[in-house]
Amino acid sequence: MLVIIDPRATKEETQALTAAALSRGLQAHAVPGTRRALVLTGTGQPLDSTVFAGLPGVLEVRQPKQPFPLASREVKPEDTVVSIGGVPVGGASFVVIGGPCAVESRAQTLGIARSVRSAGAHVLRGGAFKPRTSPYVFQGLGEEGLKILAEAREETGLPVVTEALDIEHVDLVERYADAIQVGSRNMHNFPLLRRVGRARKPVLLKRGFAATLEEFLMAAEYVLSEGNPDVVLCERGIRTFSDFSRNTLDLTIVPALRSLSHLPVIVDPSHSSGRRDMVVPLARAAAAVGADGIMVEVHAAPKDALCDGSQSVTPDAFDTLVREVGRVADSVDRPLLRQESRRPKVAVGRFA
Amino acid sequence: MLVIIDPRATKEETQALTAAALSRGLQAHAVPGTRRALVLTGTGQPLDSTVFAGLPGVLEVRQPKQPFPLASREVKPEDTVVSIGGVPVGGASFVVIGGPCAVESRAQTLGIARSVRSAGAHVLRGGAFKPRTSPYVFQGLGEEGLKILAEAREETGLPVVTEALDIEHVDLVERYADAIQVGSRNMHNFPLLRRVGRARKPVLLKRGFAATLEEFLMAAEYVLSEGNPDVVLCERGIRTFSDFSRNTLDLTIVPALRSLSHLPVIVDPSHSSGRRDMVVPLARAAAAVGADGIMVEVHAAPKDALCDGSQSVTPDAFDTLVREVGRVADSVDRPLLRQESRRPKVAVGRFA
Amino acid sequence: MLVIIDPRATKEETQALTAAALSRGLQAHAVPGTRRALVLTGTGQPLDSTVFAGLPGVLEVRQPKQPFPLASREVKPEDTVVSIGGVPVGGASFVVIGGPCAVESRAQTLGIARSVRSAGAHVLRGGAFKPRTSPYVFQGLGEEGLKILAEAREETGLPVVTEALDIEHVDLVERYADAIQVGSRNMHNFPLLRRVGRARKPVLLKRGFAATLEEFLMAAEYVLSEGNPDVVLCERGIRTFSDFSRNTLDLTIVPALRSLSHLPVIVDPSHSSGRRDMVVPLARAAAAVGADGIMVEVHAAPKDALCDGSQSVTPDAFDTLVREVGRVADSVDRPLLRQESRRPKVAVGRFA
Amino acid sequence: MLVIIDPRATKEETQALTAAALSRGLQAHAVPGTRRALVLTGTGQPLDSTVFAGLPGVLEVRQPKQPFPLASREVKPEDTVVSIGGVPVGGASFVVIGGPCAVESRAQTLGIARSVRSAGAHVLRGGAFKPRTSPYVFQGLGEEGLKILAEAREETGLPVVTEALDIEHVDLVERYADAIQVGSRNMHNFPLLRRVGRARKPVLLKRGFAATLEEFLMAAEYVLSEGNPDVVLCERGIRTFSDFSRNTLDLTIVPALRSLSHLPVIVDPSHSSGRRDMVVPLARAAAAVGADGIMVEVHAAPKDALCDGSQSVTPDAFDTLVREVGRVADSVDRPLLRQESRRPKVAVGRFA
Repeated sequence: MLVIIDPRATKEETQALTAAALSRGLQAHAVPGTRRALVLTGTGQPLDSTVFAGLPGVLEVRQPKQPFPLASREVKPEDTVVSIGGVPVGGASFVVIGGPCAVESRAQTLGIARSVRSAGAHVLRGGAFKPRTSPYVFQGLGEEGLKILAEAREETGLPVVTEALDIEHVDLVERYADAIQVGSRNMHNFPLLRRVGRARKPVLLKRGFAATLEEFLMAAEYVLSEGNPDVVLCERGIRTFSDFSRNTLDLTIVPALRSLSHLPVIVDPSHSSGRRDMVVPLARAAAAVGADGIMVEVHAAPKDALCDGSQSVTPDAFDTLVREVGRVADSVDRPLLRQESRRPKVAVGRFA
Repeated sequence: MLVIIDPRATKEETQALTAAALSRGLQAHAVPGTRRALVLTGTGQPLDSTVFAGLPGVLEVRQPKQPFPLASREVKPEDTVVSIGGVPVGGASFVVIGGPCAVESRAQTLGIARSVRSAGAHVLRGGAFKPRTSPYVFQGLGEEGLKILAEAREETGLPVVTEALDIEHVDLVERYADAIQVGSRNMHNFPLLRRVGRARKPVLLKRGFAATLEEFLMAAEYVLSEGNPDVVLCERGIRTFSDFSRNTLDLTIVPALRSLSHLPVIVDPSHSSGRRDMVVPLARAAAAVGADGIMVEVHAAPKDALCDGSQSVTPDAFDTLVREVGRVADSVDRPLLRQESRRPKVAVGRFA
Repeated sequence: MLVIIDPRATKEETQALTAAALSRGLQAHAVPGTRRALVLTGTGQPLDSTVFAGLPGVLEVRQPKQPFPLASREVKPEDTVVSIGGVPVGGASFVVIGGPCAVESRAQTLGIARSVRSAGAHVLRGGAFKPRTSPYVFQGLGEEGLKILAEAREETGLPVVTEALDIEHVDLVERYADAIQVGSRNMHNFPLLRRVGRARKPVLLKRGFAATLEEFLMAAEYVLSEGNPDVVLCERGIRTFSDFSRNTLDLTIVPALRSLSHLPVIVDPSHSSGRRDMVVPLARAAAAVGADGIMVEVHAAPKDALCDGSQSVTPDAFDTLVREVGRVADSVDRPLLRQESRRPKVAVGRFA
Repeated sequence: MLVIIDPRATKEETQALTAAALSRGLQAHAVPGTRRALVLTGTGQPLDSTVFAGLPGVLEVRQPKQPFPLASREVKPEDTVVSIGGVPVGGASFVVIGGPCAVESRAQTLGIARSVRSAGAHVLRGGAFKPRTSPYVFQGLGEEGLKILAEAREETGLPVVTEALDIEHVDLVERYADAIQVGSRNMHNFPLLRRVGRARKPVLLKRGFAATLEEFLMAAEYVLSEGNPDVVLCERGIRTFSDFSRNTLDLTIVPALRSLSHLPVIVDPSHSSGRRDMVVPLARAAAAVGADGIMVEVHAAPKDALCDGSQSVTPDAFDTLVREVGRVADSVDRPLLRQESRRPKVAVGRFA
């Protein structure tokens, strides 16, 4: 049930409203970044809207149009800008996230971090916990990998995003990283979504490779419903019959998501293609279609990479990529974020 | 690396072999139900096969043909028969699992349990933890649901299978149920797969709705590699462009799995179709194609079901289903398991 | 517009109704095998139902519920039984069609024809015009192939079904064969559908490998709307992400089609799997799910076949297949058609 | 078999080579736009390469790497530029094709033609023969529609592309239009592909909605193998599970095709999305990903369109689209073709 609040409502009136909900066994979700609306959920029973319609400060009570009210533009028309360690995603500028598929070693990660920083990236990515199809291959360095990422941040000033594979990892990831990635294979892992919904770091949520648009936004709704307003959506390719690329990048979903939801949307052209020679053109296309940013895998020696080498670009190619994407981003009036603007000297060493 | 052991090898030789592996930082996985082979995995480095080839009791050392050696027929040609609370799945007889999508109440569950028992089912299913697309709908009764299932088992003698959504649930599910279901949305949840690989109950592993055959068997390999030999595979429909049914049941995978793997394979015709009128014909087809069993959702009043009502059959329809499936099962020489044969009097009340 | 006719309407009244439609620029399609209804189509303009509602012999005028009225059970609730050269498809018995993918030579085709006849098949299949992905490979023997098929029919008494690739082939195919196959790649070839809709032989229409259920029935509607009432639908597998079989056989569509349409439905387990070892189990499943028959590729030496060898079964395997399918067909009360019942001595040599 | 010819070979030597092929029952396909190579195809038997390797003027004889040699960069590394009525597709500039889905009337078509010309389009599209799912809806104006398109060309100077649904239409379309479209539903219609391979107008070949990359290029190979060197490939979306757009635009195929083939590639953002609000962003993405052009449906009153109104943009929106696409095209150094450069006064009225 959606309760539209009178903009002139007093704080007391709003609090009374929440209390009224709680006393009926309901949960009241404030729409992030706005005081316009409350979403009441709860008992599984049909809710009696008349109870709330009469309360002071209430303009209207109705069913939301979408099953994902908190994620929808219906209750929050303005774009959400998510800050990843100071880097605004979803704002006026286009954001580039780059880094290795997996943190393999200190030297490898710091080297790539410097390269992507120098090429113009704004955020560093890198996996410490890796979801691998086989139980017998490299599974990531775990906490050691997180420490390496943190060191790379200290040195380069780039905030860090990394994946949590399970509830048990979230504490650690939350401590070390600036944003928590939920991978495609976990987009339907509802306990994990609830847990990161209670984290104090933003969530980068990747679309499941067979998820519909609605399921994708419902996964975001899980996070939002627990109180975390900072979700970045990431399209990364879907499973189709098509066999020349690993996945089929579904760029059409970008304007569709932007039209239904206020959440920022980025694109991962690396996993979607699985082929290095397609990463640059797809990155340009992502900028042109209206995405808020891209996330790209970079490896100094892709052939030696411990995972996903075939889709990683070299630092040189990443350099070209950022330059070309920058030109396309300009042409759609979403210029690349200026690196300087997001690097406060004091940001370094923020965690214990 | 696959180490083929001489059938005449002594126990000491086999233990020495395992010790040699451990001393090199490797893990040695005994192939379940056989002493024929060891699978050595481990350091991520190429393994030196000559070290093991020379040890006493070793016949041959080579790379396995499949990336899922423990699940493959290469190392275990004989069918695996998994016992779910005494009910053999994968043996000479065809097995029927039935029950509600979700445990909604004691009365509902006990009623359905009695019905499916009387119709001829061998195992009771029912969800206490439900993976739901929306955070705002019924999510299952949790431990209370597990207790109800256990009570239903005591009364009917039917063993119980129920889903664990997350690592945190596994302890509970292991305590109350006879088999732990890993749902489609969790087929790529590797921490969960590892956890149930250490459980002492069989695992019913559902195919992810966009999982390839290899990914499906790799998920089983995760469970087997942790030491749990009892995995039942379950086909439940995949995502395709086709829009008249909720999913497209991929019966072709049944003979493909049976040819590559020794694990039993059952079919869920309820989730695959999402339509009640298709459940019976698809259940018959599952028997004809060579599956080891079926798992069917039953609800006394499908329209009032708290989840997935549209695909649940009534107890009456389930009765017909079991009868019709029984005839088809006979025609392929996999007759329905006789109910009496699997109900030892002492089985009731096995847990505290 | 659907005009429901009073069963007591006179022939004159019905003719007057048709004349009234024609005089308004409409086409009147009699529903095959029934005098119950007329479907009026035509000008692209909204039709004025009141004109017809008042005419003698008219019970009711309304919009059909489905966009494929002639194919729907709404206007013809009774099953349609299509006679392919005397073999009833869609009746009380299950029908087996077998033969080579392509007619390669007289000896090969006659040999296989004798084998499938002796194994118990009811209809002979074989391609004289082959749709091939490459322009550089064997494209079929053309008319020579049709003559060979006709000779095989004379010798074995088996009616013949073969594909017409294009409008230009239809005259020839109509002359030599007992049923005209429209292949998957042509399911959307509307000029061809219209042309076979004017043929005097039944049409075996294969589902396009990315066709929805509605598109499939609309393709049948094209044929029916031109006056040919004899359409057999054939499921043969769809394109999905799944990569272990050539296509994914969608058996769920069989009960769905049978519920919406009165047309018979058969299954092709050869093209759907592309793998010989899956053909037998899928053929059994087709019988169990409620199909009216199967169509199977047979080749004496699959490895030498000029096309699709990998999915052809040997005559010996076909023998086993018919026996096993027969048992399943019995178990669902659709026994195999008795061969004797459909071989009138005079049928041989029917064409010049 | 691929015969690489010495660049210094005389004309006589090349002709002798072709004659040698013919005398052995082979066909010799000169690679369009180059004298570098011959592709010999033919008897279905393995070819004896030694016969040709010894002939004068022959550098090398080998198997082509791809099953589509004529379409591949292996035998023709240079980009093919196809001239549609004087408009170069595949050259240094980006090309815009616009027009109505169907020619509905003279006034509608001329009005839209003027609009798209004035917005900056280079080629006019419009269907006179329409492939429709239902036999009961508007099927196109046929030859009358072709005449209207020709009149629109005379008035605006825009060359015209329109679809031929069947062999029987090709003569007509060839007479009136500047390029012949083969639609998605006909991509596997091999007789039609052969026929347009003998036409003297370029072919715009749309990808089938379930066609793999290889099948798409094999369809082009059919056209090329008949002697028509002018094929433009068009990506228009594929069938997937995704349900928010009509199809899933597969932009990844653009760089993949450009890398394997010398043929130009354009993108249809209208059919792929089926939604007006996505056409503009997808058109921009097509330019960014490296396509050679786009084809867009325009309708003055989309709600009244006789087909596909939901995906047509208004002339005003098309104006915006061309402007925005132009900026993106500039940013990837493929500026829009200048309209003036392709409108020779004498081009008008070229046909009788």
